Amino acid sequence: MTDRTTDLLPEGLEDRLIQSAAAATRIERAVLDRLTAHGYDRVRPPLIEFERSLAARMDGVSRNHMFRFVDPKSLRTLALRGDITVQVGRIAATSLVEAPRPLRLAYAGQVVKIAGTALEPRRENLQLGAELIGTDSVAAACEIVELAIAALEAAGATGISVDFTMPDLVDVLADGPLPLADREAVRRELDMKDAGALTEAGGAAYLPLLFATGALPEALAELEALNKDGVLDSRIAAISQIAARVEGRARLTLDPTERHGFEYQSWFGFTLYAQGVRGELGRGGTYRIGGSGEVATGFSLYPEELVDAVKAQENIGEKVFLPLGHDEAAAEKLRAEGKRTVAALSDADDAVALGCSHRLEGSEATPL
Amino acid sequence: MTDRTTDLLPEGLEDRLIQSAAAATRIERAVLDRLTAHGYDRVRPPLIEFERSLAARMDGVSRNHMFRFVDPKSLRTLALRGDITVQVGRIAATSLVEAPRPLRLAYAGQVVKIAGTALEPRRENLQLGAELIGTDSVAAACEIVELAIAALEAAGATGISVDFTMPDLVDVLADGPLPLADREAVRRELDMKDAGALTEAGGAAYLPLLFATGALPEALAELEALNKDGVLDSRIAAISQIAARVEGRARLTLDPTERHGFEYQSWFGFTLYAQGVRGELGRGGTYRIGGSGEVATGFSLYPEELVDAVKAQENIGEKVFLPLGHDEAAAEKLRAEGKRTVAALSDADDAVALGCSHRLEGSEATPL
Repeated sequence: MTDRTTDLLPEGLEDRLIQSAAAATRIERAVLDRLTAHGYDRVRPPLIEFERSLAARMDGVSRNHMFRFVDPKSLRTLALRGDITVQVGRIAATSLVEAPRPLRLAYAGQVVKIAGTALEPRRENLQLGAELIGTDSVAAACEIVELAIAALEAAGATGISVDFTMPDLVDVLADGPLPLADREAVRRELDMKDAGALTEAGGAAYLPLLFATGALPEALAELEALNKDGVLDSRIAAISQIAARVEGRARLTLDPTERHGFEYQSWFGFTLYAQGVRGELGRGGTYRIGGSGEVATGFSLYPEELVDAVKAQENIGEKVFLPLGHDEAAAEKLRAEGKRTVAALSDADDAVALGCSHRLEGSEATPL
Repeated sequence: MTDRTTDLLPEGLEDRLIQSAAAATRIERAVLDRLTAHGYDRVRPPLIEFERSLAARMDGVSRNHMFRFVDPKSLRTLALRGDITVQVGRIAATSLVEAPRPLRLAYAGQVVKIAGTALEPRRENLQLGAELIGTDSVAAACEIVELAIAALEAAGATGISVDFTMPDLVDVLADGPLPLADREAVRRELDMKDAGALTEAGGAAYLPLLFATGALPEALAELEALNKDGVLDSRIAAISQIAARVEGRARLTLDPTERHGFEYQSWFGFTLYAQGVRGELGRGGTYRIGGSGEVATGFSLYPEELVDAVKAQENIGEKVFLPLGHDEAAAEKLRAEGKRTVAALSDADDAVALGCSHRLEGSEATPL
């Protein structure tokens, strides 16, 4: 038995079999329950939409990453969703445009992309998340970061790390005390973390950013070197406030110029990791909803790698074998107590082979 | 606020908003929990597969009903799944081919078809179900019918009806005591329930079937008129045994020659209904898995209409407003007790507008 049936399924797609399906289901429920407890209401948008509607709300960037096909009904191009966030944004801007703000929405569902990467070959993912719509304040960022950590804790993740980023930092500095001739070149060299090339690109004044990376609060202290005329006061205070809110619950780091995947974030972004889980578990931040331009703060989790990390240990529950002619009331009582039952259909049914640890004898479940 | 955003979404596709998403989530969980309790293990197959793989296991009939597109990776045609049963059959025949039988598998997920009908315009459905693989015995049919009813009860359906059908009945009679020159013509007129045309088609001997319809056991008694040489003894006994298993939990009827949607069923099929719910809620029966030919018994629920029937009354839980500077331990205690909390982010947040019925004062939730 294996989860990989590569000869049967297209590359990057897989069946989640018994243990891993149980882990995925438990994690999905635990996360949604946590979001529900914090006042987030679930919405369930469809798997497919007009391609134009999905793409318009993504500024076109991910458009080529979606499976597309023609709808014989409307003769328009449809797309299989690659991200539920854009659908939640559409709902906030249309059906729920009159709902009071801040509007708290949650979602869970499968998303698909047309191609994986060498690092992330998976083309279908479970996406779980929360969006706090109508605000991108520091208070909103505090709630969303804390909620993301609480959701991961509820899912069973341990050793959680949160890496903060400040997506508009270069703009703030370049519009203020440290003007740049070629802003894009400086951004590129900051991404490469190449001090020599950064200086050549005219970004010598930005060198301290290369050191404002790593554990908080040390990284924030390094950032003070660039805080001319207090231009970064509010940003540094905001990051400190968010960090204080979740102190002790996660390892906190700063990578102030990280841009990859934060193209839509405004002043704040973060990436989530957990011990023993390959790659990122999710990300979030502040942004403007495509189309409507309304401000929002949110996060998405992609827990597939967490599922893979825990599936071998996933507890799928104890099964009690019910022999032919068993006491049905006793069986229902076991189920009401949370036990699972497996009823014999013929004399040939083998309790142990069927994964049972107990057998109902009279009204008692006795170990096999 | 409305669930219908027809101008924004393709025909037959909709957003499930707060109340109806909560109802769908509750129903999905309740059904899966019931299946889990009865020993069914969930599997989660992908949303898309090779079209040929899905179609081969459906005998090609539903092939034109699926959205199809070319995979840039494999250059093969993929399809968006229209039915999870065929995927479960593929898993049983491949990854889980060595798992002991009977193999009990459960599933839940979205399925999509390319076109709705006038009666069922919806193109995306939630499909929930259970498959008992490796057996199509009367005992298997008893378990599956009882489980389907138990699943609907758990979902909150009331006034449940089960309509039994006997898909191979005409074959059994025609191969035995009542030979036919044109079997297909007789089947067609039985579908039309047209006594004159049935006689003209050479099926005069089959006229009693038109009366063997309606409430059990009266319909079964009518069927006895055709039970020449005891050819129907085992079938009548089987239906009676299944009926006895669920007596008092559902209204039971028989429509022995109903064929629509039972093209894959072998000796037994059934359709599920509930009071106040438009159309069918699901169906099931005995069948052979496409490709492997292994026998199986199972059912699928399509609870969208049940969701629509209950969504206005769906209880999404009481929300407690947490003012700025609230006692966080008291808030966590409320959540642990199953309450939902909504934290103020600024002085402008309005507890009543945000749907809160209570407000945390000190450590107490007081009504607003």
